[in-house]
Amino acid sequence: MSRARSDYPWTIDMPTRWADNDQYGHLNNATYFSLFDTALTHWQMGAGLLSDAPDAPRFLVVENGCTYHEELAFPDLIVAGVKCGHVGRSSFRLDLALFRGEATEAATTGFFAQVQVDAGTHKPLALDDRARTILQEISR
Amino acid sequence: MSRARSDYPWTIDMPTRWADNDQYGHLNNATYFSLFDTALTHWQMGAGLLSDAPDAPRFLVVENGCTYHEELAFPDLIVAGVKCGHVGRSSFRLDLALFRGEATEAATTGFFAQVQVDAGTHKPLALDDRARTILQEISR
Amino acid sequence: MSRARSDYPWTIDMPTRWADNDQYGHLNNATYFSLFDTALTHWQMGAGLLSDAPDAPRFLVVENGCTYHEELAFPDLIVAGVKCGHVGRSSFRLDLALFRGEATEAATTGFFAQVQVDAGTHKPLALDDRARTILQEISR
Amino acid sequence: MSRARSDYPWTIDMPTRWADNDQYGHLNNATYFSLFDTALTHWQMGAGLLSDAPDAPRFLVVENGCTYHEELAFPDLIVAGVKCGHVGRSSFRLDLALFRGEATEAATTGFFAQVQVDAGTHKPLALDDRARTILQEISR
Repeated sequence: MSRARSDYPWTIDMPTRWADNDQYGHLNNATYFSLFDTALTHWQMGAGLLSDAPDAPRFLVVENGCTYHEELAFPDLIVAGVKCGHVGRSSFRLDLALFRGEATEAATTGFFAQVQVDAGTHKPLALDDRARTILQEISR
Repeated sequence: MSRARSDYPWTIDMPTRWADNDQYGHLNNATYFSLFDTALTHWQMGAGLLSDAPDAPRFLVVENGCTYHEELAFPDLIVAGVKCGHVGRSSFRLDLALFRGEATEAATTGFFAQVQVDAGTHKPLALDDRARTILQEISR
Repeated sequence: MSRARSDYPWTIDMPTRWADNDQYGHLNNATYFSLFDTALTHWQMGAGLLSDAPDAPRFLVVENGCTYHEELAFPDLIVAGVKCGHVGRSSFRLDLALFRGEATEAATTGFFAQVQVDAGTHKPLALDDRARTILQEISR
Repeated sequence: MSRARSDYPWTIDMPTRWADNDQYGHLNNATYFSLFDTALTHWQMGAGLLSDAPDAPRFLVVENGCTYHEELAFPDLIVAGVKCGHVGRSSFRLDLALFRGEATEAATTGFFAQVQVDAGTHKPLALDDRARTILQEISR
């Protein structure tokens, strides 16, 4: 995954919390996933990919991962970057990066592979053209 | 609130997690509330107070609090105690205590005041006789 | 505790996270304490009350609590307010409130009673004049 | 990664918590990492790999990931399995799996790649023979 800030078309500020730090005085690894999760959900809501309707399709995480290059810690202000790395039939992969403040190189990079499923049956559902266009907009 | 283990009619084991500790090397205060929450939910499910049905009444927390007597920290095995401290018309108060392992005096005591509400309207709903009997069983 | 925004001299923006919501689709009660904790820590750091030095005094939480007036939920942007409600010999109480966006009335109010302790012995340590002046600045 | 319970030489029970579930009514993805983290830390402490001494080497997570096969949710009792997948000069990879109760096939598999570093400088530190022997004991 690229660590360059300029490679991430969409970004969002994410303040850290006191409880994010573990006993080692840096963000616990689970915190990174919560930040990724929040960043991509904000992007999906803003882009019109996610709906509140109870029967709207959902995006389930099928695989995710994170590579830790430098430590982040409360009270860092983190900037999360999101880009789309791959689009499949019913699934896609979002690539994510966390930057400390103004840093141009990511402290952490990661990915979330998600599959669109029916809210009721949880069976995969093909992405329609509208969704593909939205995902394309942050592909690079 | 009583710190005596013998005052809590219902108890449950609650292992701690690595991320529960904050930078000071002890459980973050928010963790205590998550443990309380889990203990009382388990008690309510086991006692038949909580239902999974989507339209079943819910118990909303209206007030809670915690007093910290001694520090707890991962990897402590914690035992949570639950008793009912008060029953009102549609609300009740559960008193909670956290014990380190075999300790007979609580490291932490707290309470959750909950109100039963309609799942749809979120308006208070009077507790029926069955609920009162269940709550009475752990009143002391 | 007052719910009026104008009663809180110091405020900070606190974005919510996807994982803050529990199964009921609103912030889990433990999340509120993590937000309170973060707000007061930011205030204490900015005001010069908290030091990073390993042997600097610490503020331990001895009691905290929360009253829930209205539900908050991701993706709400929350504004946290902090004021000082009481100053004792070695302890003080910070009153806290969480507002949804521009709301002038708090959705949640709470408090943290903290005691200053020696980093090594964890024995209470009297607040000096400097600390008292800082606390006075957000007393109202 | 193998999903077979019999492939994981070391296991530990991990009860879920109410707040582990997100709005979708299943464990939030960050929760899985916290469970993995806790399982491997317990294993490392029990095996004598981790020391409490302030200047003892630390294991930093350099990369981790998770694949989600089936949903887990509170109040599931989860069993976590740990095995060692690779040992390098100063780093190693632990493979992890989460099983719902008595299930023989994992609902989730993942890995943590860790590097041993000096507590002060955070520079990589070669694993000694004792550490290698301990890691070998859960390699399969």
